[in-house]
Amino acid sequence: MASQSFHPPQRTLMGPGPSDVHPRILEALARPTIGHLDPAFVEMMESLKELLRYAFQTGNTLTMPVSAPGSAGMETCFVNLVEPGDKVVVCRNGVFGGRMVENVERAGGVAVPVDDPWGRPVDPDRLEDALKANPDARIVAFVHAETSTGAASDAAVLAQIAHRHDCLVIVDAVTSLGGIPVRVDDWDLDAVYSGTQKCLSCTPGLSPVTFGERAMEKIRGRKTRPQSWFLDLNLVLGYWGSEGRRTYHHTAPVNALYGLHEALVLLHEEGLESAWARHRRNHAALRAGIEAMGLSLPVPEAARLPQLNAVSIPAGVDDAAVRRRLLEDYSLEIGAGLGALAGKVWRVGLMGHSSNPRNVLLFLGALDAVLGEMNAPIERGVAVDAARRRYRDAD
Amino acid sequence: MASQSFHPPQRTLMGPGPSDVHPRILEALARPTIGHLDPAFVEMMESLKELLRYAFQTGNTLTMPVSAPGSAGMETCFVNLVEPGDKVVVCRNGVFGGRMVENVERAGGVAVPVDDPWGRPVDPDRLEDALKANPDARIVAFVHAETSTGAASDAAVLAQIAHRHDCLVIVDAVTSLGGIPVRVDDWDLDAVYSGTQKCLSCTPGLSPVTFGERAMEKIRGRKTRPQSWFLDLNLVLGYWGSEGRRTYHHTAPVNALYGLHEALVLLHEEGLESAWARHRRNHAALRAGIEAMGLSLPVPEAARLPQLNAVSIPAGVDDAAVRRRLLEDYSLEIGAGLGALAGKVWRVGLMGHSSNPRNVLLFLGALDAVLGEMNAPIERGVAVDAARRRYRDAD
Repeated sequence: MASQSFHPPQRTLMGPGPSDVHPRILEALARPTIGHLDPAFVEMMESLKELLRYAFQTGNTLTMPVSAPGSAGMETCFVNLVEPGDKVVVCRNGVFGGRMVENVERAGGVAVPVDDPWGRPVDPDRLEDALKANPDARIVAFVHAETSTGAASDAAVLAQIAHRHDCLVIVDAVTSLGGIPVRVDDWDLDAVYSGTQKCLSCTPGLSPVTFGERAMEKIRGRKTRPQSWFLDLNLVLGYWGSEGRRTYHHTAPVNALYGLHEALVLLHEEGLESAWARHRRNHAALRAGIEAMGLSLPVPEAARLPQLNAVSIPAGVDDAAVRRRLLEDYSLEIGAGLGALAGKVWRVGLMGHSSNPRNVLLFLGALDAVLGEMNAPIERGVAVDAARRRYRDAD
Repeated sequence: MASQSFHPPQRTLMGPGPSDVHPRILEALARPTIGHLDPAFVEMMESLKELLRYAFQTGNTLTMPVSAPGSAGMETCFVNLVEPGDKVVVCRNGVFGGRMVENVERAGGVAVPVDDPWGRPVDPDRLEDALKANPDARIVAFVHAETSTGAASDAAVLAQIAHRHDCLVIVDAVTSLGGIPVRVDDWDLDAVYSGTQKCLSCTPGLSPVTFGERAMEKIRGRKTRPQSWFLDLNLVLGYWGSEGRRTYHHTAPVNALYGLHEALVLLHEEGLESAWARHRRNHAALRAGIEAMGLSLPVPEAARLPQLNAVSIPAGVDDAAVRRRLLEDYSLEIGAGLGALAGKVWRVGLMGHSSNPRNVLLFLGALDAVLGEMNAPIERGVAVDAARRRYRDAD
């Protein structure tokens, strides 16, 4: 049996997540484990919730991390808010909208998918039409930043439309939180979930969620219990709620929470506005380099996520071979396309701690070299300079 | 906003979990994060599955960690194996049997609880009677080691009875794995879940599970999809299955898995038999000390878990005050009683890395001092010596 300790290679993570984890977060993970009911831990939980409220820009009391990855955060929203028979309009412009449809159906709801092309934002008019055609819909669900395509949708506008039709909104902010503005209160979002391994630069495994008063009302008024015991918010809140007394529900992932706490402290130290500006700045430099090479970014400019860049794969180039070469020669990870975009784009993440000039230049230099060796039809030797110029112009 | 890094106190963890985490595991947690589809990570996953098979003493292909705490491991078993209308006999002799009933009901099944007193093992005769009275039952579920009481049940015998009545068995091995024998293949257990933060001495947050062929058959033959997308084994297996190709399902908790891998390497280095013997040895010393003080262990000797010791609280002693004093003066955590045993017992864990003579002597000395100061009716100043004698006699 291969029973040796595992020592991972040191990578540069520029895929769709996990992103590079800040050393202070790794250090926090290794701090001594204490009990999940320890007074010191409970105090840390309070601080963590407060920091999460800052990240989400919300005053919602129910703001906390679910003890499992982003998919479980998504499921937390759907199993608690959707009751059997509820009609849910789901905007679908990528993998994660599709997953939402699955969630609605498994919760016993009726999903009404509203499709937009992959790589495009959700079209508010189509949502409006769908709601007019389905006046009995109770919930609208959409993805703010589609990790599978790199397209951002206008969460504020979509939420307004939903509310005008008396619907709650469930919003996927897995890839947006910390990278672009997510203003839960200003935009009046009812239930939002995110992940730790994207623009928070933390290790994967937890899912921050926040629920507003309208959502809480729906949950309190349920006629049936949610299908999940583990994700039932009425039970989870006995532990994470702020009544002072902590009731055991499940054993919290103590050390993972140390990591998330540290990630949020880092975000708070930098400030949200600065973090958003940093993501924009590095994206602009990446874009300058990509375009100088003659490659294109297929997502329309207005909808491009600065933290997740879909880059068109040039004709005749072997997608997997390029990614393998980047990994093997430069220990650099970028992402493949998913679903409809498989083989058509690379996904280049500049998320959280990964969003820095060093990574931008490394990626452009490495891609230039690898594509050059493959005789791909690109402009050689110009990408790095173009990015550097862009940084200088911005300063 | 309190936005400072969190530095936990250094505790000695002798509650019902988390237990003390080995420094090698903490160190592993802090290793550089890599992608969940990275070839190096995939290799680690294979090694982790092999090590888990050793821990569970099974050849089951489907042996892997669920990306969430033990409660989610429990839910994985129930949502995948129970179809709406299925009758499930649940042996209930503590908190976790009760949680199983909840899980059955939320999965749309019909739960038939078979009750035994808290602190006693499950009575095989009562199970037999329940199965005779319910010939349409499809599944039997029981807890091998009840964390809420410290009582062990005879998993081999209970599984035999269940199979004689054509039932699958779901077994909670959260607190048993690594502390006492868990022989999945020899005992013919169909679906077993565990936790990381008990006798594996790892941080909380993951739930190792293993499913045998009969269980897989039932899952493959389902007429309905499981209610959970996140825990649907048919989807999870696209990522953890051994077909060589990894399909993205959710982002695995990379660093937490480094920790579990290291915990399993440690267990393999020590050897299961040695780990079990160590748990017995330290339990015997603890028991000698407790009895010398004049306190009692309410679980009948034959059913006592060496890793989780329920200790009767002497009459007139303030339960919470004692635990608080131990925490504040000695940074020593022990557990409170749960449910029916709240205020009646302390739960003293000697799990995994916590099971060592240093902890036994620290606990006995500290309890002797704290109870003495409270003028509790105990024999003073004899517990540590009694434990030391017991260690010497055993050598």
